[in-house]
Amino acid sequence: MLNFLKSIKKPVSEVEGILHQVVIVGGGFGGLYAAKALRPVPVEVTLVDKRNFHLFQPLLYQVATGGISPGDIASPLRAVLHRQKNTRVIAAEVVDIWPDQKKVILSDGELSYDSLIVATGVMTYYFGNDWEEDAPGLKTVEDALDIRRQIFLAFEAAERETDPEKQKAWMTFVVIGGGPTGVELAGAIGELAMNTLKDDFRHIRPSEAKILLLEGKDRILPTYPPKLSDKAVKSLEKLGVTVQTETFVTNIDGAAVTLRHGEREEQVQSKTVIWAAGVKATPMGQTLAERAGAELDRMGRVIVEPDLSVADHPEILVIGDLAHYAHQDGEPLPGVAQVAMQQGRYAADLIHARLKQKTIPPFRYKDKGNLAVIGRNAAVADIRGLHLSGFLAWLIWIFIHIQFLIEFGNKVAVMFQWAWTYLTKKRGARLITGANPFPVVKEKNN
Amino acid sequence: MLNFLKSIKKPVSEVEGILHQVVIVGGGFGGLYAAKALRPVPVEVTLVDKRNFHLFQPLLYQVATGGISPGDIASPLRAVLHRQKNTRVIAAEVVDIWPDQKKVILSDGELSYDSLIVATGVMTYYFGNDWEEDAPGLKTVEDALDIRRQIFLAFEAAERETDPEKQKAWMTFVVIGGGPTGVELAGAIGELAMNTLKDDFRHIRPSEAKILLLEGKDRILPTYPPKLSDKAVKSLEKLGVTVQTETFVTNIDGAAVTLRHGEREEQVQSKTVIWAAGVKATPMGQTLAERAGAELDRMGRVIVEPDLSVADHPEILVIGDLAHYAHQDGEPLPGVAQVAMQQGRYAADLIHARLKQKTIPPFRYKDKGNLAVIGRNAAVADIRGLHLSGFLAWLIWIFIHIQFLIEFGNKVAVMFQWAWTYLTKKRGARLITGANPFPVVKEKNN
Repeated sequence: MLNFLKSIKKPVSEVEGILHQVVIVGGGFGGLYAAKALRPVPVEVTLVDKRNFHLFQPLLYQVATGGISPGDIASPLRAVLHRQKNTRVIAAEVVDIWPDQKKVILSDGELSYDSLIVATGVMTYYFGNDWEEDAPGLKTVEDALDIRRQIFLAFEAAERETDPEKQKAWMTFVVIGGGPTGVELAGAIGELAMNTLKDDFRHIRPSEAKILLLEGKDRILPTYPPKLSDKAVKSLEKLGVTVQTETFVTNIDGAAVTLRHGEREEQVQSKTVIWAAGVKATPMGQTLAERAGAELDRMGRVIVEPDLSVADHPEILVIGDLAHYAHQDGEPLPGVAQVAMQQGRYAADLIHARLKQKTIPPFRYKDKGNLAVIGRNAAVADIRGLHLSGFLAWLIWIFIHIQFLIEFGNKVAVMFQWAWTYLTKKRGARLITGANPFPVVKEKNN
Repeated sequence: MLNFLKSIKKPVSEVEGILHQVVIVGGGFGGLYAAKALRPVPVEVTLVDKRNFHLFQPLLYQVATGGISPGDIASPLRAVLHRQKNTRVIAAEVVDIWPDQKKVILSDGELSYDSLIVATGVMTYYFGNDWEEDAPGLKTVEDALDIRRQIFLAFEAAERETDPEKQKAWMTFVVIGGGPTGVELAGAIGELAMNTLKDDFRHIRPSEAKILLLEGKDRILPTYPPKLSDKAVKSLEKLGVTVQTETFVTNIDGAAVTLRHGEREEQVQSKTVIWAAGVKATPMGQTLAERAGAELDRMGRVIVEPDLSVADHPEILVIGDLAHYAHQDGEPLPGVAQVAMQQGRYAADLIHARLKQKTIPPFRYKDKGNLAVIGRNAAVADIRGLHLSGFLAWLIWIFIHIQFLIEFGNKVAVMFQWAWTYLTKKRGARLITGANPFPVVKEKNN
């Protein structure tokens, strides 16, 4: 053991091939928790991500609505793992996997592995429609800044617009998808219009903004108990959000959204449409299907074995949103951070057990509860059958999220920013940025 | 007076033409302070800026080096001015000025004025060279994010580079220009390499990074007393920065910087070059020359009268970096925030006096002192002949800047972020962002 400790202080390259090599692709919740759980295990870990930071995605909607800055919820992967001597971080893009040679192919190099953990997650999906430009999704920092720009430019454009019809279109915000992301986004836009921007304009009243939240199913937050869906609707309505369920989007074209509700079709003129309705697997799913014969579900996710491995490839584990795990209660597990974190820890345990020639029971998800926040001081929580809403649920939400943020390093500033936002109803990160922000308005005006 | 108060509660357009109209172009220190000083004056103010925020430029180097987020130093203009009922903010681009008709032409409209205050400042200037791509300047949020990306990508690329020559080029940072911006940038990069990133890599030692600060004159901080220039050099050297004075850049090509020192020419291989050496007037200077016959200096700045007006156009005032004010001690005033703020206040006072048919004495700049910060706990200060350096100067710097930030609204988080950075030597905003960050590395590798 002492010898091992000595050896890992050398640069990884010198001892490569001696210790069991674990390559983790993706530095989200799954990949990062797998890496952290491998700290005491006598392996060498290489975490590869094309970004240099872990993104705390549950708060991305706060960036999109100007509450916090991207830096507040992004932790440099190197900083999070810098004390972990058996782990190196590589900022690179994975372009292929060769299971026969146990190699991960980068755009500018390759890595050999003994065990591979794939945790690249999911991306926005428009069900085959070409709506990306007119209805951005919310998955990356760039997405969030793009949405932030659109929201704040819309108020600016409305302030200057003299045609009442056009002004109304600028003041109409449509959020598509009534899951947690859609609910949190719509709530935050409501908060913005009702409180933050209240006194900032001279020609428009931001509180008259029309905010539509659309959901195809018969209620929003469909994975929550029905009672909490009702509470969420009430909280959203207080913030000026109109919730429309059983409503499907049939077209988006930059000027309007076409809706279908039963037999009725309707056009809503809106300049700001946000997509929170669908995701599909990242391309790594397809790669595993082609190279390792992995079976995919219709979202492109990898259907994994009870131990999270790919069938016939026990050395390849798929975790987090990219994994379709259906060995528990029939339904695949939801794509939430909790699942990814638990699967990351399980993957590390499994690799550790195998090194010791031991076996461990199949993965089992322990649901610790679900929370969605609506505006400044309301939330809904479903914690092991305990259903909470309102301010108490909000406090729990704040508490849990701050805990997570601290775990990822130096994000104490976020707490203060929140406290400040809460006390003052202000939002500090209302920048419209981008190389040339104004052509966006002009284009959309045409 | 009561009548006036009533009237300004109506939308500005309804009463337009009744009150004296002041249009301010530019929401930097000059424009914003002019607007604020016009609060009690019976005029209607329109502040036009193409961005929706005031940028606290003195801290932009902190964004470029990952210490803080853009949102921390950007205050929405609407939020800063939202209680000021006689002022409206317009986010628009000014494309022309027609002094004969007293109109400001926007890209999508026009504004009439009785008094015009032009405060559009300066922009990066390469003395006619085509170095913009290879040596970004530091004037905008986008510049800062671009530089941040380059710096952090350089360390990532060095970590993965196996060719020692190329690795050295990635680990070499060249800052051109030894004024306050260059000194602060070089110090912050030194801080980063020496402290923040110290333990984050496995193959490189960030503390071995080569950081060059180049200055054409015989000392850095040439506007400071010589003794403080020496102190600054010593502080920089402690952070691993090499200062080269009397050195001129003759070429920059993305792979190397060519320097001339006396007769000697030298090539420094570097992938990260930052330009802090030159500025010129924004195009509004040229517009005023063509339309109002304003005289320009060789940097394109408007040479103003003792009351900051354009010759033969008393109703047009030019303030801040765009103004060349030579009526005091011969030398034109330096392009610093202090000058702009005092000129903004003067412009408001002048307009107020004229409305009351009074006159006021010419503008006079009161120098309250100059400060430049070097790394985490050193600075140099020249406060009315009192020369300070080291930790005490740093404390004064922190104190003054926090005061300013508070004045601009909700930036309390910045204080905590700073305190945290100081205590932990960490930097929270080390994100590499941009639509497609990696092609940058690949391009530069070729």
